[in-house]
Amino acid sequence: MFNQKLQKLGTEHSAIRELFEYGLARKKEIGEENVFDFSLGNPNVPAPACVTEELLRLIGEMPPEKLHAYSSAVGLKEVRAAIAQYIQSSFGVPMSEDLIFMTCGASASLVSVLSALLLPEEEVIVPAPYFPEYALFIEQAGGKMVPVPTDEKFHLDLHAIERAITERTKAILINSPNNPTGAVYTKGELEGLAALLERVNTTRKEPIFLLSDEPYRELCYGEKPTFPMVVYPHTVVLYSFSKVISLPGERIGYVAVSPACYHAQELFFAVRGAARYHGYVCAPTLFQRVVADCQGVTSDLEVYRRNRDLLYGALSDMGYSCTVPEGAFFLFVKALEPDAKAFCARAKKHELLLVPSDSFGTKGYVRISYCVKGETVERSLPAFRALFEEYNG
Amino acid sequence: MFNQKLQKLGTEHSAIRELFEYGLARKKEIGEENVFDFSLGNPNVPAPACVTEELLRLIGEMPPEKLHAYSSAVGLKEVRAAIAQYIQSSFGVPMSEDLIFMTCGASASLVSVLSALLLPEEEVIVPAPYFPEYALFIEQAGGKMVPVPTDEKFHLDLHAIERAITERTKAILINSPNNPTGAVYTKGELEGLAALLERVNTTRKEPIFLLSDEPYRELCYGEKPTFPMVVYPHTVVLYSFSKVISLPGERIGYVAVSPACYHAQELFFAVRGAARYHGYVCAPTLFQRVVADCQGVTSDLEVYRRNRDLLYGALSDMGYSCTVPEGAFFLFVKALEPDAKAFCARAKKHELLLVPSDSFGTKGYVRISYCVKGETVERSLPAFRALFEEYNG
Repeated sequence: MFNQKLQKLGTEHSAIRELFEYGLARKKEIGEENVFDFSLGNPNVPAPACVTEELLRLIGEMPPEKLHAYSSAVGLKEVRAAIAQYIQSSFGVPMSEDLIFMTCGASASLVSVLSALLLPEEEVIVPAPYFPEYALFIEQAGGKMVPVPTDEKFHLDLHAIERAITERTKAILINSPNNPTGAVYTKGELEGLAALLERVNTTRKEPIFLLSDEPYRELCYGEKPTFPMVVYPHTVVLYSFSKVISLPGERIGYVAVSPACYHAQELFFAVRGAARYHGYVCAPTLFQRVVADCQGVTSDLEVYRRNRDLLYGALSDMGYSCTVPEGAFFLFVKALEPDAKAFCARAKKHELLLVPSDSFGTKGYVRISYCVKGETVERSLPAFRALFEEYNG
Repeated sequence: MFNQKLQKLGTEHSAIRELFEYGLARKKEIGEENVFDFSLGNPNVPAPACVTEELLRLIGEMPPEKLHAYSSAVGLKEVRAAIAQYIQSSFGVPMSEDLIFMTCGASASLVSVLSALLLPEEEVIVPAPYFPEYALFIEQAGGKMVPVPTDEKFHLDLHAIERAITERTKAILINSPNNPTGAVYTKGELEGLAALLERVNTTRKEPIFLLSDEPYRELCYGEKPTFPMVVYPHTVVLYSFSKVISLPGERIGYVAVSPACYHAQELFFAVRGAARYHGYVCAPTLFQRVVADCQGVTSDLEVYRRNRDLLYGALSDMGYSCTVPEGAFFLFVKALEPDAKAFCARAKKHELLLVPSDSFGTKGYVRISYCVKGETVERSLPAFRALFEEYNG
C-alpha cells in the first residue's frame, strides 16, 4: 500500500535514534542523573554566548516580517558573503559567496550534494567506520557506497583507497574530525590522498571529487585540521553548525564548492536543484543570520577535552582498549566480546547507552559520545568498571 | 557529469523564485517603494506579537543546550501534544500526538507524504490551477500528477474529478484556501467530494487518500474552512505556519494523519522514513516550541482584507476581470492577452511583478500575491491602470 522501503525505514528507524528515544524514556523512569546516555551526538554543552546574544540582538533590532521572511533558495547574500570571507581569511583559499549554499544541516547537505553529483550506479568511496546515514543518502541518490577500511588508528589507508577506485568512482567522502572514531586526518595524510587522486585523474576524463563532511571542524584537541580545498581542487565542503556551537536542533549548515572545482558553477546549480527537488525551500533564516556572526567560535572545548581525558584515561586503566580521540567528541572502544550489539545490550543493564559499531560499518567496537556534562562521565565510571568486571571478574 | 535533471532545475529555478530574485535586485536599483512585488507569498505583515514574546520567553527561560537540542525525528512530544489538542478542540475530531509529525514546512511535508504514499506510476489528482511544486514533488515520489479543471469560480468540479479517477489513483491533493486563486471550498463541496470518494472506494480494494495542503487555513475572509478530517476518514493534513503567522523563512509545519485513516500508523511510519530518507533530521526546535504556543493566532488578517478589497475593487473598476478571493492572499486575474507570460513581461515594465498562470497549470491568468503593505497596493494602482490602458488605450 505504501512505499515499503520507507515504511520499513520509518518503523525501525536508526539504531542511534532508537537508543536516544530509549534514553529519554528511561530518564523519566529512574531520573536523568542515573542514565548514562552516550548514544547521540547531541551536545550537552551550551551554545557559546554569541548565539544567545545574536538571537536577542536580531529579535530586538529587525522587524519580524524581515527577520522571518523567505531567503533566496541559496541563502541570504550577506550570510553567504560572511561565510566566504571567513573561509578565505581562515584557510587562505579563494572562496566566492556564489558557491556557498545554505542548508538545513549536514544531512540536507549530504542529500543535496550526493543527488546533484551522482549518476546511476556511480560509486562513492567511504573510509570505514563511517556515519551510518552515508549509506542511506548515497543509495537515495542512486549511487553505490564502497566502504574501505582505515588503518589501526582509524586514519586513511591510501592503498586500500587506490584499490577501491574503479571507472565508476565519482567521489570519496571523508569526515575529519571523524564520527565515530575521533580521528583527525593530518595535512600530510590529506596531501597523500590528493596526490593519489591527481595521479588517478590523469587516466580519467573527469576528476574524482573530494566530499569533506566536517561538522566537527573546530572541535580538535591538537593542531587545527587542514582545510581540504587547500590540498585538492575538486573539493566540496559540507559544514554544519550543529556540533561546533551546539545547535543540532536548529538545522543550519552550508555547502561550499571550491572555485577550483571541475565545473564548479554547474555543480552548484545542480546542488540548488537537488535541494529544491527534496523540498528544501531555504535554510532557517533566523539561524542563517545567527551563525554568520558566530563563525570560528566554539562551545566550551575544554569540557570535551576534560571528558575525553577522563574517559580515555579511566577506561584504559580499567583495561578497555581504545584510541585517544584527536577531535570531535567520540571515543571508539573495543567491545569486550566479538558481538558489539550483545556487548551494548549488557552495557544497557548498567544504564550505559553505547552505540555498537555495526551501525558504522565495522564490527567489534562501541562508540561513546562524550558531548555530555562532566559529571555524567564521572558518575558513569563505576558502571563501566562493573561492566568490565562482568567480563573479566 | 552531474544529474542533468537537477542541474536544469537548479539553473532555471522556479519562475516565481526568479521573479522574486529579480525584485530584490530591482529594489536596490530604483528603491524598495518603487517596485510592486506581487510575486511571492512572502508575508510582509509582521508575525503576531506572540511569536516574538515566545521567542524571548524561551531564550530567557531555557538553557541553550536544551532549547537548541535535537528533538525526536517526529518532533517534540509536548509540541505534538499541543497540536493534537488544538485540532481536537478546534475541529471536534479525535487526534493523537502519535500521528503528528513536525516538518520543515509545507514543501518538506509534501515530499515526505507523497514519497511515503506513492508506488511507482500511481496517480495523484490535483485540481488546477495548482501550486507549481506539486508537479515536481509528485514526480520526485515516482508518481504521476493528473490535473483536473475547476469550475469558473475555481471551485471543485466533481464530475471532472470522477472522470479522472482510474485504478491507479492513489490520492487527491487539495489546497483550500487556494494558492493561486483564493478559493475556499465550502463544507457542502467537501462533503460532495467525500461522498464521491466513498462511493468509488466501495469498488476498490484500498481507499483513495485525501491530502489537504492547508498553509492558508486561518486566512479566510468569510466563514472558517471545514477541516477535511471531519468529512472524510482517509485524510492527511499538511499544515505550515509560514503564511498564517508570517514565518516563511523559519521552515516549520506539520503532517497530521487522521486516526480514522486506512492503515494510519503504517502511513505515519512511512512518512517518518521518507523524511529521514530525504535528510530531514528534525524540524527546527526553537520554532517547534514557538508555534505550539501560537496556534489559532494569525498575522493581522485585516491588512490582507483591506488589500483584497482595495485591489479587487480597483482592478474590477479599471476593467480587469477577476474573482473575489475567499481566503489566502492571492488575486487571480485574467491577463489582457492570451499569453500570460507576455502580459507579465509588459507588467514588469511598469514595475509590477506578477506571476503568469502557466506556472499553475492554467493559461491566460496572472497571480497577484497581495501579502504586502497596504501602501504598496495603493502605490501600485496607477501602474495597473497604465498597463490596462496600454491594452485598451
